[in-house]
Amino acid sequence: MRAKLKIGKLVVIGVGLIGGSFALALKRARAVRRVVGVGRTRRNLAAALRLKVIDEAQLDPVRAVRDADLVLLATPVGQMAAVMAAIAPHLPLHAVVTDAGSTKRDVIACARRFLGEHFPRFVPAHPIAGTEKSGVTVSLSELFRDRCVIVTPQRDTAASAVKLVRRAWETCGAQVMRLDAADHDAIFAAVSHLPHVIAFALVNTLARRPNAKQLFGFSGGGLRDSVRIAGSSPEMWTDICVANRDALLAALQDYESELEQARAAIENGDVEALKRMFEQARRAREKWLVRKS
Amino acid sequence: MRAKLKIGKLVVIGVGLIGGSFALALKRARAVRRVVGVGRTRRNLAAALRLKVIDEAQLDPVRAVRDADLVLLATPVGQMAAVMAAIAPHLPLHAVVTDAGSTKRDVIACARRFLGEHFPRFVPAHPIAGTEKSGVTVSLSELFRDRCVIVTPQRDTAASAVKLVRRAWETCGAQVMRLDAADHDAIFAAVSHLPHVIAFALVNTLARRPNAKQLFGFSGGGLRDSVRIAGSSPEMWTDICVANRDALLAALQDYESELEQARAAIENGDVEALKRMFEQARRAREKWLVRKS
Repeated sequence: MRAKLKIGKLVVIGVGLIGGSFALALKRARAVRRVVGVGRTRRNLAAALRLKVIDEAQLDPVRAVRDADLVLLATPVGQMAAVMAAIAPHLPLHAVVTDAGSTKRDVIACARRFLGEHFPRFVPAHPIAGTEKSGVTVSLSELFRDRCVIVTPQRDTAASAVKLVRRAWETCGAQVMRLDAADHDAIFAAVSHLPHVIAFALVNTLARRPNAKQLFGFSGGGLRDSVRIAGSSPEMWTDICVANRDALLAALQDYESELEQARAAIENGDVEALKRMFEQARRAREKWLVRKS
Repeated sequence: MRAKLKIGKLVVIGVGLIGGSFALALKRARAVRRVVGVGRTRRNLAAALRLKVIDEAQLDPVRAVRDADLVLLATPVGQMAAVMAAIAPHLPLHAVVTDAGSTKRDVIACARRFLGEHFPRFVPAHPIAGTEKSGVTVSLSELFRDRCVIVTPQRDTAASAVKLVRRAWETCGAQVMRLDAADHDAIFAAVSHLPHVIAFALVNTLARRPNAKQLFGFSGGGLRDSVRIAGSSPEMWTDICVANRDALLAALQDYESELEQARAAIENGDVEALKRMFEQARRAREKWLVRKS
């Protein structure tokens, strides 16, 4: 049996659903001595203190990272460059930094540029968990149980840093997988970022109509489930879309051409083509999504 | 108090989720003496008999409708013209006919053409219920409890026929609402038919990629909920798309222009425009969908 993980000081920058749940899970496992939370508003940090998600609140990331052993960047990806630039001169030499961003190539590029000499102790990671709800008040120590966390270490990432981050996530109950960063970004553009853009666009399509209230009044469980993820944080998803621009545009193009085929079949009353498309989709969902869950 | 509804012979043509649940609910309420089910396959009818959804099975709708008091057409909408043409010469003069089709203008046009002298006793209806699952084996006597059933009677529809159909659905626990048929079709093109086309297209976008298995393997609850309705019957949805062509194409056009705006904002890295779109969608969902449920 391996020795139990013991982290001295954990600093969570961005105490929302992901950062808060990571802290809670490590506290529950008694794998961390002290958690310092860094946030933009006193109100959110006060809630995190009250819920015992963090032991100390800091508005200033620079003060927070002094003596840090592990730093988790759990802000929207658009803020990571500024945070990295601010903390780099103040990070202890042994500190390991990781992130929970939904995109990896851009975060890695930021880290290479702004973390400087600390880059080898930066472990890019993406926990595949979360809901459309955001904020520390929905944090759960069990959020990552049996979920997958993807790490995308680079050639010059220290093995010891990867090991620490891997063990931290495993302590949260997650399974850690290694992927190439570009593969990660292409995969999540298709299975996550594209569906979010679609959900936001579908809600707006209905919301812009003069009889929007009537429309939503007649909607059922189908629409409700289809657009659940349109309740996600606009700030976080704006950042993701911009950060993963190229992979997302490629996925969007594939989708638009698929939609265009459906449109043409409907316009031409092409019953056979339409039925074939719907059957393919039903089979694929059955094969890959239903059996999985 | 009104006298209890008593239907002598109910004929359900198309014994699937909707037809089966209607029969079960009326039986449970003891509001029907005898249910005859008409289907295309002996296997499905045998299941319906075994589950006591129907009392008698018939492959031939013509034989089934003799002595019918109420006939429910619960086939995919594309089959209704043929069924109506077949049964019209054999319907008793007092029989009331209704349907459960998801589109109304086309079904009304069929009925006017093929039911002939029976048209005044045809009540166009659409129960807003159902799941992505289909078939008699998932029928539930409570499927319509607190759900909405829309009726779209025409100027020459007999008030007595509307009353019978309304009472039958109310006996199933549903609330009955009257709408103009064109309004109905425009509303459901937007809130139901469009989301189905989107879900089918999204699944196909992923399924066509060479690494489809890997993609679906990394998908989470967001994608799963987004495409749940892609499990719906391809035959039924092909018919709906073709039957409601014009209203669906209009909804699809609005959606494509919404998507195009998102695409342009992503391409241009227009953070403000993107965030505004996502915020609008989140607010609309919160206002109209979350509070509703």
